[in-house]
Amino acid sequence: MSDTREWTRRKESRMGVRIGVIGGGQLARMMIAPAVELGLELRVLAEGEGMSAQLAATGVGDYRDLETVRAFAREVDVITFDHEHVPQEVLRALVADGVAVHPGPDALQFAQDKLAMRARLAELGVPQPEWAAVRDEGELQAFLDDHGGRAVVKTPRGGYDGKGVRVVSDAAEAADWLGALEGGALLAEELVSFTRELAQQIARRPGGQTAAYPVVETVQRDGVCAEVIAPAPHSTERLVRVAAEIGERIAEGLDVTGMLAVELFQTDDERILVNELAMRPHNSGHWSQDGAVTGQFEQHLRAVADLPLGDPRPLAEWAVMVNILGGPAEGRIDERFAAAMDAHPDAKVHTYGKDPRPGRKVGHVNAVGDDLDDVVYTARSAAGHFA
Amino acid sequence: MSDTREWTRRKESRMGVRIGVIGGGQLARMMIAPAVELGLELRVLAEGEGMSAQLAATGVGDYRDLETVRAFAREVDVITFDHEHVPQEVLRALVADGVAVHPGPDALQFAQDKLAMRARLAELGVPQPEWAAVRDEGELQAFLDDHGGRAVVKTPRGGYDGKGVRVVSDAAEAADWLGALEGGALLAEELVSFTRELAQQIARRPGGQTAAYPVVETVQRDGVCAEVIAPAPHSTERLVRVAAEIGERIAEGLDVTGMLAVELFQTDDERILVNELAMRPHNSGHWSQDGAVTGQFEQHLRAVADLPLGDPRPLAEWAVMVNILGGPAEGRIDERFAAAMDAHPDAKVHTYGKDPRPGRKVGHVNAVGDDLDDVVYTARSAAGHFA
Repeated sequence: MSDTREWTRRKESRMGVRIGVIGGGQLARMMIAPAVELGLELRVLAEGEGMSAQLAATGVGDYRDLETVRAFAREVDVITFDHEHVPQEVLRALVADGVAVHPGPDALQFAQDKLAMRARLAELGVPQPEWAAVRDEGELQAFLDDHGGRAVVKTPRGGYDGKGVRVVSDAAEAADWLGALEGGALLAEELVSFTRELAQQIARRPGGQTAAYPVVETVQRDGVCAEVIAPAPHSTERLVRVAAEIGERIAEGLDVTGMLAVELFQTDDERILVNELAMRPHNSGHWSQDGAVTGQFEQHLRAVADLPLGDPRPLAEWAVMVNILGGPAEGRIDERFAAAMDAHPDAKVHTYGKDPRPGRKVGHVNAVGDDLDDVVYTARSAAGHFA
Repeated sequence: MSDTREWTRRKESRMGVRIGVIGGGQLARMMIAPAVELGLELRVLAEGEGMSAQLAATGVGDYRDLETVRAFAREVDVITFDHEHVPQEVLRALVADGVAVHPGPDALQFAQDKLAMRARLAELGVPQPEWAAVRDEGELQAFLDDHGGRAVVKTPRGGYDGKGVRVVSDAAEAADWLGALEGGALLAEELVSFTRELAQQIARRPGGQTAAYPVVETVQRDGVCAEVIAPAPHSTERLVRVAAEIGERIAEGLDVTGMLAVELFQTDDERILVNELAMRPHNSGHWSQDGAVTGQFEQHLRAVADLPLGDPRPLAEWAVMVNILGGPAEGRIDERFAAAMDAHPDAKVHTYGKDPRPGRKVGHVNAVGDDLDDVVYTARSAAGHFA
């Protein structure tokens, strides 16, 4: 099942398994704890000084610069990512150099380009909203006319946390984006009438082994994940199975390695449609740090290092994650520790070493237990101390 | 309850709470993960390059040298420890400088000197084996004669993992130690007839808040901890209460701050006697990393930073820890990851970044679940892959 070349290469290294993460944000930061515990060496190519993953930052440089990335890659056994923004030409040059890159460029292109993702999911028969590539106002207006006069328009590249996404009811509302296209296209999607949003996490090793987490419910505010309940309340056996099958089909069909997060809509008529993909640990999986036998950050490291995957089972009936968005209007986040911890000794507080700024993800709180109301209350209330 | 001077001092720091750990071994290493997750800055004064806690090592130097330790202490808000070997004169000079030291020298003297510990526990009325300070062969022989002809003899300082401990049946067997005393004394203890060994973990903040973990059973081999079962099987309510009360009495009586581990004997006649103390996270508490809401390393950081303590409750009915002693006879520890993880996806593997060496603690495996036989099997079998 495993790629023996990688294993051999690693054995020849004097240092043990060295995992190189491109990007120094909170996702790289949260790989530090499981890397230290397992005994995998983590190296991080950060965008600048003082990033979240500072402790493991062994280099600072521009991830768009091939020679910078090449120099970083020479010191590690496998390259993985904190974000999906490393250019395809850089990724493909690394692969040509013989570097193990997980997820690889063939997979990552579908996380980098939402039009490519929609086209590939259609080929795979994965249920998704109706969509079209629109090159001009006429095409967008035609899509609007066919879909009740409203649609979601997305820039195929560079969007995250609600950025690069707009709901429009007239093609003119996307005129600025359409005017800047230079030959490309925007993605138009039907405005799905959903009852709730879900997310499916699944890990996949290079050789194909997968481990699916239970499907979770995510609550978004202003386009940003605010809260996650694991597993999704009122999950039917069918829902759990369908979500896991969608995760499996995408992970395999796109040859994803590492963690894959599939954001889903559950519609009024009980359909499950794919909204977005992320090929890395994802906010919707943070609950697993404290709520599953194997957290998503450990699982990602195991998958990209081509080690057998860990057990994704929950440790308790419920786990709830509440983001700390923005942080305190005055003072530092850690000045709120005493009050939060005093009120909630069972809350698991995670902060990212970032300065507070309105709307910014600066930390999250996990809570775990067998009574959902209690667990929701603990996580929300503890997180509330950081507002 | 909390020491407001410390809190004020911290607030004035630009960087957030900075915890300085003296000693770069695996206990310091295992503080890294919770420090990163909470967002506490950890600094480590390591004994040399390439120590277990290398990732957080911000300094290398001799912990017996006051100026080295002073320079390290200037950059942190609180000093704590990976081991108990920092000399009293160094500790007392730091306190005189106004440095927050947890545990403080008044507490640590009882972990550094087993004769002082026995005398203080006697004052506190804590149940312990019969003991005496013996200065020469005559005094030791008298103790032997009074205790059935056999006794445990310990050097009061510097012993660990079975070192500095000897069972003797004739005073001449300790002649070398007695000859080297230079005016001091050895500790002679009755050879306790015990059915099993237990350990009580308790955390204590500077202001007095405590949090007790459930008493655990420890299995020693050749004087080294081999296995821990949490909670101790067949624990009666009385046992749990008595062990916690002993922990409380010692933590308060000795003014311990941070984690305290109390190693206990359970005797044939159901008495609980104190064997040894450790004022830091301890091998007998490693199970809590994966088996409790708040692991002992997070709890230690919270206690020494004077933050409210976390919930010490177990996450499942059972947690078992098995040490990886020695490690592979050939090759590196991480070369065994694949086989161990493949066989036991639910095992939590922790390694310390140390080279294998016979008898050396190089890692441990935790397993958690509701069936004790399963959990013991998982932890033992996964750890066995590293032999």
